[in-house]
Amino acid sequence: MAFAKKDLPKKSENLSDWYNRIVLQAELADYGPAKGTMIYRPYGYAIWELVQREMDKLIKERGVENAYFPLFIPESLLKKEESHIEGFAPELAVVTIGGGEKLGERLAVRPTSETIMYEAYSRWIQSWRDLPLMINQWNNVVRWEKRTYLFLRTTEFLWQEGHTAHATHEEASAMVRWAIDMYAKVYRELFALPGYVGRKSDAERFAGADLTMSYETLMPEGKALQSATAHDLGQNFAKTFNIEFKDNKGASQHVWQTSWGFSTRSIGGLIMTHGDDSGLRIPPRLAPVQAVILPVKSDEAVLKAAREIEAAFAKNGIRAKIDASDNETIGFRINKWELRGVPVRVELGAKELEKGTVTVVRRDNGEKLSITLADAPTKIAALLEDIQRAMYEQAEIFLHENTRKADSYDEFKKILAEKHGFIAALWCEDPECERKIKEETKATTRCLPLDSKEEKGKCVYCGKSAKHRWLFAQAY
Amino acid sequence: MAFAKKDLPKKSENLSDWYNRIVLQAELADYGPAKGTMIYRPYGYAIWELVQREMDKLIKERGVENAYFPLFIPESLLKKEESHIEGFAPELAVVTIGGGEKLGERLAVRPTSETIMYEAYSRWIQSWRDLPLMINQWNNVVRWEKRTYLFLRTTEFLWQEGHTAHATHEEASAMVRWAIDMYAKVYRELFALPGYVGRKSDAERFAGADLTMSYETLMPEGKALQSATAHDLGQNFAKTFNIEFKDNKGASQHVWQTSWGFSTRSIGGLIMTHGDDSGLRIPPRLAPVQAVILPVKSDEAVLKAAREIEAAFAKNGIRAKIDASDNETIGFRINKWELRGVPVRVELGAKELEKGTVTVVRRDNGEKLSITLADAPTKIAALLEDIQRAMYEQAEIFLHENTRKADSYDEFKKILAEKHGFIAALWCEDPECERKIKEETKATTRCLPLDSKEEKGKCVYCGKSAKHRWLFAQAY
Repeated sequence: MAFAKKDLPKKSENLSDWYNRIVLQAELADYGPAKGTMIYRPYGYAIWELVQREMDKLIKERGVENAYFPLFIPESLLKKEESHIEGFAPELAVVTIGGGEKLGERLAVRPTSETIMYEAYSRWIQSWRDLPLMINQWNNVVRWEKRTYLFLRTTEFLWQEGHTAHATHEEASAMVRWAIDMYAKVYRELFALPGYVGRKSDAERFAGADLTMSYETLMPEGKALQSATAHDLGQNFAKTFNIEFKDNKGASQHVWQTSWGFSTRSIGGLIMTHGDDSGLRIPPRLAPVQAVILPVKSDEAVLKAAREIEAAFAKNGIRAKIDASDNETIGFRINKWELRGVPVRVELGAKELEKGTVTVVRRDNGEKLSITLADAPTKIAALLEDIQRAMYEQAEIFLHENTRKADSYDEFKKILAEKHGFIAALWCEDPECERKIKEETKATTRCLPLDSKEEKGKCVYCGKSAKHRWLFAQAY
Repeated sequence: MAFAKKDLPKKSENLSDWYNRIVLQAELADYGPAKGTMIYRPYGYAIWELVQREMDKLIKERGVENAYFPLFIPESLLKKEESHIEGFAPELAVVTIGGGEKLGERLAVRPTSETIMYEAYSRWIQSWRDLPLMINQWNNVVRWEKRTYLFLRTTEFLWQEGHTAHATHEEASAMVRWAIDMYAKVYRELFALPGYVGRKSDAERFAGADLTMSYETLMPEGKALQSATAHDLGQNFAKTFNIEFKDNKGASQHVWQTSWGFSTRSIGGLIMTHGDDSGLRIPPRLAPVQAVILPVKSDEAVLKAAREIEAAFAKNGIRAKIDASDNETIGFRINKWELRGVPVRVELGAKELEKGTVTVVRRDNGEKLSITLADAPTKIAALLEDIQRAMYEQAEIFLHENTRKADSYDEFKKILAEKHGFIAALWCEDPECERKIKEETKATTRCLPLDSKEEKGKCVYCGKSAKHRWLFAQAY
């Protein structure tokens, strides 16, 4: 395996080439043999496990329970909700043969689980006492893609999908808000990825939803990445699937539903945002290895000290690993772990050992520190939190610098031509303007931020009256 | 929902009817809309999560890393290893349409991941320094079934599959032994399910393996359940997929491989073995709720005490839950939680509160105890361990009582006709005898137990010389 940095394209010069190479070289992922598929290698999958561990806690604390529904959805079931199937039909993988025989009814491989879950919900829910019904799944879904973009666009991906049913719309609304806020928290606190929480336009919302909330982040070349969504499904599916309950007065009512999802696409956003010309930079809270310990030479005293440091780190909750590969020079190993984005590198040689210190190098900014052996565990635990914060701040500055107001269509187009990024512009909310802007500039509405204030002004495209400044951007 | 016990068939009278009903009524699982599929409901899935948590720790401690490989395997790849595809071809689900178009190459939905993983292994492994390569997946697999038997036989099921590559056969052998011992430990210590560890016959081993080890348990009607397997793949796949490494002298060698799997079928074995006429009995270590606290009436003082007990239990690591449903009588709630198999029931009324005690009922044997409020957390933690042990012992007695020696074919057939269970019989290891025994009695070889001693004797079928006493049984 080659870790020579000279092989790596510069991130600033060719982002997608850099991205594809770094994902392979850092052994995060690989291509699968079927078109559009990917292999999550252990180093990449370990990031997802860390996400799962934290998010699963948050989901369970909210009273949502995990379950697992079948992968195969009979086509007739998937077709029950009209706008839903229209949205997903072009992306389906379809099983037509099972057990050596042509199937009487074709089976879709789930692109999402609304239909198969709600068929069961209609049987399970009878009374207001059965509500809220709140279920989450960690699973794999399939949406056909011809070209693979590792993590960001693949035929099969991993995610969680939450699906709740409530007695009132108010309760369902609160659930949607909880979900998108939970996602924002996970992005901000674990991924160090700032973004905007807001409502999608009618044209951009989920197939079958009344309202979609999303978390939108910004990638280095100025394209937006829709990073997680939460949907207020109203009573649309409830009416299609007859999910009714008797309220406490004995009257029949349809339930109010929500669904919300967060996928491994998030790891693509992490790589893009934080990486640099030397490779990955993984935020400490999601780093499978937070501190790599590199004995300069594999001398027995140094190795022994390295093992003691590793044990002391583990005791302090730091995920540490020794790399003492005797066939690789210290320079090679430094490059390798820089490329793999480990937040802190601890170098240890005979000289340091004599002085009772280690040399510590931050991956985020290259800063070198000399720390005494005794202080290392606590100081590095604190340093990791510092790095997490610094990486978030750096990304936040980028996001703010690349969110620009446009008060005319010329200005709008000029920003897109020169700088990309988010454009905050007044829009009349007529889908026709949205469609034309997309056609002419490839920029779509990303969301109306939750905290946006009402203004008096004119639509950036048609000039009719407009009240809200929506975020537009070209997007993944 | 109905929890009236009178609806439940007696386990001793109609095992499969009892089983199907209890799985549905206890809300462990439900049928999916496509034939052969099942829904893992939250209560059933929570058992699997507890298994995962413990087993994942054991797997990681052994140095095996988690990853995720694609669901879709191009047919050409699956066909590369001849005996492997022969074994799985009749069970495949095949995707022929993707993204609205007929596919150039059909994709099998993975029945297991040997082929797709080893194609990648051949690219990842170059040198002895890349070995051992040890990867595990927690995923879903599909093997076509026409009739569903919830947990026990379904088209799609959840499992883990470990796949390792080593430099020597010795190392691979040790890995197979580690895996089957780990499974036996999990079955014995978590599931309270005793069983036999042994080697499968050539006819019964995994398609593509040189040797298969299995853990065989015994269900109440005397049928064996193959509960987990570990395979020594030799160099079969290595040769087919060109997985070669340069050893430390620079010579090219093929790797030695293993694979091993453990599925949600295990939960079926748990239900079958431990349940009784009143419903489930879940061994405490796998019980999503270990102690249910039932306030006799929803009086404020009693509810307050119940919440205090719940908090004290949580502090002591006991998974506790209060059921104070005011629309259900105490009798109804007792039935409900008996049916759901919660190991310990804590009843609390005004009378008990006055005396500062609770009434504790063991689900395994119905024993009632009066425990002071102060002692409850520690005493119940100990009681749960007692119950776990008692359930294992009860199952172990059943296993031993139903493992019988047969020294003639008449005796063999008589045992099968009258009592079923495991039959330990000398067999010459000629596949022809095995085939005929199966044809005539439906009993198959289950395994040659690891601890079996060599004997001098004659094959129970053909009378030729035989050295080993194999276990035979009718099986799921």
